[in-house]
Amino acid sequence: MSGNSFGTLFTITTFGESHGPALGVVIDGVPPGLELSEADIQKELDRRRPGQSAVSTARNEADKAEILSGVFEGRTTGTALAILIRNTDQHSKDYTALAHTFRPGHADFGYTAKYGVRDYRGGGRSSGRETAARVAAGAVAKKFLAALGIGTRACAQEIAGIVSPMTSWEEVEKNPVRAMDPDAAKKMEEAVLSAREKGDSCGGIVYGEITGVPAGLGEPVFDKLDALLAHAMLSLGAVKGIEFGDGFDAARQRGSTHNDAFLGNGKWSGNRSGGILGGISNGNVITFRLAVKPTPSISLPQQTVDDEGRPVTLSITGRHDPCIVPRLVPVVEAMAALVIADCLLRQKALR
Amino acid sequence: MSGNSFGTLFTITTFGESHGPALGVVIDGVPPGLELSEADIQKELDRRRPGQSAVSTARNEADKAEILSGVFEGRTTGTALAILIRNTDQHSKDYTALAHTFRPGHADFGYTAKYGVRDYRGGGRSSGRETAARVAAGAVAKKFLAALGIGTRACAQEIAGIVSPMTSWEEVEKNPVRAMDPDAAKKMEEAVLSAREKGDSCGGIVYGEITGVPAGLGEPVFDKLDALLAHAMLSLGAVKGIEFGDGFDAARQRGSTHNDAFLGNGKWSGNRSGGILGGISNGNVITFRLAVKPTPSISLPQQTVDDEGRPVTLSITGRHDPCIVPRLVPVVEAMAALVIADCLLRQKALR
Amino acid sequence: MSGNSFGTLFTITTFGESHGPALGVVIDGVPPGLELSEADIQKELDRRRPGQSAVSTARNEADKAEILSGVFEGRTTGTALAILIRNTDQHSKDYTALAHTFRPGHADFGYTAKYGVRDYRGGGRSSGRETAARVAAGAVAKKFLAALGIGTRACAQEIAGIVSPMTSWEEVEKNPVRAMDPDAAKKMEEAVLSAREKGDSCGGIVYGEITGVPAGLGEPVFDKLDALLAHAMLSLGAVKGIEFGDGFDAARQRGSTHNDAFLGNGKWSGNRSGGILGGISNGNVITFRLAVKPTPSISLPQQTVDDEGRPVTLSITGRHDPCIVPRLVPVVEAMAALVIADCLLRQKALR
Amino acid sequence: MSGNSFGTLFTITTFGESHGPALGVVIDGVPPGLELSEADIQKELDRRRPGQSAVSTARNEADKAEILSGVFEGRTTGTALAILIRNTDQHSKDYTALAHTFRPGHADFGYTAKYGVRDYRGGGRSSGRETAARVAAGAVAKKFLAALGIGTRACAQEIAGIVSPMTSWEEVEKNPVRAMDPDAAKKMEEAVLSAREKGDSCGGIVYGEITGVPAGLGEPVFDKLDALLAHAMLSLGAVKGIEFGDGFDAARQRGSTHNDAFLGNGKWSGNRSGGILGGISNGNVITFRLAVKPTPSISLPQQTVDDEGRPVTLSITGRHDPCIVPRLVPVVEAMAALVIADCLLRQKALR
Repeated sequence: MSGNSFGTLFTITTFGESHGPALGVVIDGVPPGLELSEADIQKELDRRRPGQSAVSTARNEADKAEILSGVFEGRTTGTALAILIRNTDQHSKDYTALAHTFRPGHADFGYTAKYGVRDYRGGGRSSGRETAARVAAGAVAKKFLAALGIGTRACAQEIAGIVSPMTSWEEVEKNPVRAMDPDAAKKMEEAVLSAREKGDSCGGIVYGEITGVPAGLGEPVFDKLDALLAHAMLSLGAVKGIEFGDGFDAARQRGSTHNDAFLGNGKWSGNRSGGILGGISNGNVITFRLAVKPTPSISLPQQTVDDEGRPVTLSITGRHDPCIVPRLVPVVEAMAALVIADCLLRQKALR
Repeated sequence: MSGNSFGTLFTITTFGESHGPALGVVIDGVPPGLELSEADIQKELDRRRPGQSAVSTARNEADKAEILSGVFEGRTTGTALAILIRNTDQHSKDYTALAHTFRPGHADFGYTAKYGVRDYRGGGRSSGRETAARVAAGAVAKKFLAALGIGTRACAQEIAGIVSPMTSWEEVEKNPVRAMDPDAAKKMEEAVLSAREKGDSCGGIVYGEITGVPAGLGEPVFDKLDALLAHAMLSLGAVKGIEFGDGFDAARQRGSTHNDAFLGNGKWSGNRSGGILGGISNGNVITFRLAVKPTPSISLPQQTVDDEGRPVTLSITGRHDPCIVPRLVPVVEAMAALVIADCLLRQKALR
Repeated sequence: MSGNSFGTLFTITTFGESHGPALGVVIDGVPPGLELSEADIQKELDRRRPGQSAVSTARNEADKAEILSGVFEGRTTGTALAILIRNTDQHSKDYTALAHTFRPGHADFGYTAKYGVRDYRGGGRSSGRETAARVAAGAVAKKFLAALGIGTRACAQEIAGIVSPMTSWEEVEKNPVRAMDPDAAKKMEEAVLSAREKGDSCGGIVYGEITGVPAGLGEPVFDKLDALLAHAMLSLGAVKGIEFGDGFDAARQRGSTHNDAFLGNGKWSGNRSGGILGGISNGNVITFRLAVKPTPSISLPQQTVDDEGRPVTLSITGRHDPCIVPRLVPVVEAMAALVIADCLLRQKALR
Repeated sequence: MSGNSFGTLFTITTFGESHGPALGVVIDGVPPGLELSEADIQKELDRRRPGQSAVSTARNEADKAEILSGVFEGRTTGTALAILIRNTDQHSKDYTALAHTFRPGHADFGYTAKYGVRDYRGGGRSSGRETAARVAAGAVAKKFLAALGIGTRACAQEIAGIVSPMTSWEEVEKNPVRAMDPDAAKKMEEAVLSAREKGDSCGGIVYGEITGVPAGLGEPVFDKLDALLAHAMLSLGAVKGIEFGDGFDAARQRGSTHNDAFLGNGKWSGNRSGGILGGISNGNVITFRLAVKPTPSISLPQQTVDDEGRPVTLSITGRHDPCIVPRLVPVVEAMAALVIADCLLRQKALR
């Protein structure tokens, strides 16, 4: 397989390019009998869709979800569940100039080295637009998890160097950058708009957590829960790092300070471990942080070469997110939900 | 599958517990015709084996590799290649006291929640001893890669808060902590021994790189090269985080500073990306850093409960590494080699 | 995975129900740079589509293929290739009477036992209509194979007890039953129409072959070439058996008569082996035969029970093929092409 | 993966060559808490082992099973379960003459075309000896199934053209050919010995059944239960065909005669379907028949070529089974058990 699928039992297969006719996903392994409507999916797609605020790209896509199979009379049937999202606002001509030039910070050169050919329109398959299909699938996973009392949530913890206090989850969906603190959110928004104005972009940190996870999820050895989550999150193009619990700080701690004392019944004295020990969930909240790089598409001039190796000075003028962190939040939640749904089914098969 | 396998085309399946009769690995997908001897494998196992220095555990295992299949007249045949490593120095009795107690920082509680039963001797399947099988498999991958001019290498960049200057790869195998700088290595060694003396442990950071990787490796979407490497590295129990290139620092950079300019031919003005863009290798050296937590087994008293929920104060007295960073170095190299070997075969299948 | 995917490197994932909005397939692993148009796919879908002749069902579906991704400027890009086929001629009301009754010879009872819920309209996911997606994917595989001089073809060797002489492949597409001999074809056609008239149905045998296959395809042990082909063919609901080469006749032969003498260079004195030895192609034409059961949907009265266990006498009146053999022919070719395409990529990865 | 693994959740990976140091298997997905001893495995291996009677090969292997992992205090732990079987009676020199000659009826030429290299000693990886590992794994699956009231059994229904009446399962293990009828068994035995005497070999038919299977096993579309069983059985080198229930006879039946009437509760008026409808078990006994070709190794002279294409007249003189049917019986049972165990876990994951 060429990497368009993810998951062992709750398996998704996505397709679609930034400027092709449509994106979509087939989910194999959805438990039968789950109530599901297109509205369940649309709700999440709306959180990810472009054009939702001043800090996101101007591309205007409704990202309307159509369920093509696997649902009958409002419930899942247990068979393959396909969801289709038509592209409607392609400006393919914007990219003609890029047909022969490799954009710095993008996969353009890698794709050419890999495939020999390349759909250069908006990055083709390498576009972040592909994550719409993930969010659609993640909405199904979220519905499944919610019935079991499990939730995934994420927020912008840092943007352009501005760190948000971890005040309140309630605030996150109330500001365009999806931070917990309204004041920090305001500053982050200004920083993003200022970066855009200068033809530049900025990065940040997404904080995520998964609540209600029973102890015992994750597989020993290679499919440790943190390994699967890391796989899921690093499969997002802009993510350059992940850490669980105290993460890189743990590298400087002693065993005597790092170990959370066990209080029994899935309760611990703290959560330096991030809810995972030896790759298996320990009953605590699972916590992680993601390093998100600044959007590589900027209008400031950059040095690169064309496909004949000639130096080119490039200024990218298409529609782009000056900072992808806010729109990444629902994608991160979706990926986390997909991993947990998969682990739950694997555990169900085990005993 | 329950997570004992890794890789799509160069696939390894490991087995074995810390205190069972043996560990081993089956490698499916080794290209035929590769020269291979047990010495090739032993060389790497010797770098990982316990008892190799004062900073490692006192458990004394020869970790002798026996090739059981897949090699004929000194060359691989392309069929399943199995390697066996017998355990010889088990002290199972050391663990009787732990049969009913959940060690903090370990997978003990998670395993019980998962399986209902648990081989408590040395952590059973959750023991780091399992990585011997990975190193054996990695030695085969390394041999395959070496013939293509590809290498993986790693070192201790930080231990117990002491950061080693990145002086010289030549030094790494000359000191017991596997750092690049002899002076830093000395201090690291002292810090580890001091931690052990106090009944405590310490963590650190492993730096790794992969050289000679052609552009175009990694799959789009879910099996991005960094996603696969993250999966591989986070499947090591002590690793709590990973970052590629500038990693978490990238979160604070601007697009105009983060993007490496492309000079053509797989050459770039710098390597903030860590050699991977959009999940595909870009011709640059691949670089990453791993957060390694302090060993959870310490003799200082810790609070926990037994399997009937009664509070227990635990002091772990078995044989343990006070810092796992030095012995993790060859394991990290092995995992990196396995990922790259797999990606090469996938690319070969593609075109 | 719940069985909606097939193939290791040339992997297809299908979705869709008989009476849902659409069917479709995602192909992961299509080599980049292959010329491909919707017409290539339509050509094969037209051979399978319902309503094509008097011996097939009256359901009238255009089975129009739309490529949603993976093709750019007339060539495949190497990324996920999705094909959509809308359902247009659903008569869902025909099936209301079957909502609570288990049809003999169908998967109805098994699905209910499996999922608890069931889309009863036309069999839902268990409908043969699902094979349209396979034929669409198979058309892509066929295009890929054709460029390498490899072809798959099939015909009706027997229908309702009438055996067709293996006269000429040229004739196959000229008669509605897809037999090699025009006279036998005429008799087969009459037998099918007569069965339909009586409210009954009939079965038959499909003969298939794969030409131009290089020696060395197939994997040792579990993924032998014949094992993969058997998996592919038995995944067609109506197929009850498969044999390769002399098949069941071989059970009565001696080694001295069964063994084909080897003439070198992939040439053999005969082809009792059906082109596969020890699971690996031997350079000869691959030949196989499939036992196809009579269509279970008949209007003659049948005994069954409803979902509360009450006896029911059932007479099925919807639109059905009185004999599925003719329309199975392109499906069998498609499945054979998918298996060979997959094996070729696996071999390419090997060396 | 190169085909050394089988199964989705109850997954086996085998290794080993006919004349290498050892054979073995790793089973991933064994449910935890299952009572298991080496004796459970040995019992099945003894039924398959060479040298057990006059109708089998003279190679004398004890086929002693050693459990290397996954069992603790007499119960499975849910982690990878490895079993090792040492080869002890290799006569590698017998094969020196075959190093450069392709045996008719064997995979020799295919392997060379595939890998470029070949372990010619006893067929290397292509040897039927590989099935010892499957039988070992199957013994674990059988133990798991037995606790659920599910059993797999097989017998020789036909050998050298002699058909055994299906008298009694009790008789099967009492005669060396494993037939149900003692008189037929006697004649079969004589036919096999006579074939051997003439330097020839013979084939036959294995009948198998699986009892106690609940309705609802098997996956829709590609992993239909019969598709998985066909995959499993055709992965045995000597098997040239499979049919379920009425199989090839069904091709000549009418729908009105072929359909079993449904009596409710998993009961049917007959079993023409072989217990599987639309790929899903229907509560009836699963029945199938396998075409087994005559052993290709015969001492009668055969025409072939060497690896430089020169004609050779070959007379094979090593130790071989003149008819593999009797020893195939436990292997078929093992494969059936592995498929059902896998399907049970998949169903358990589903709901």
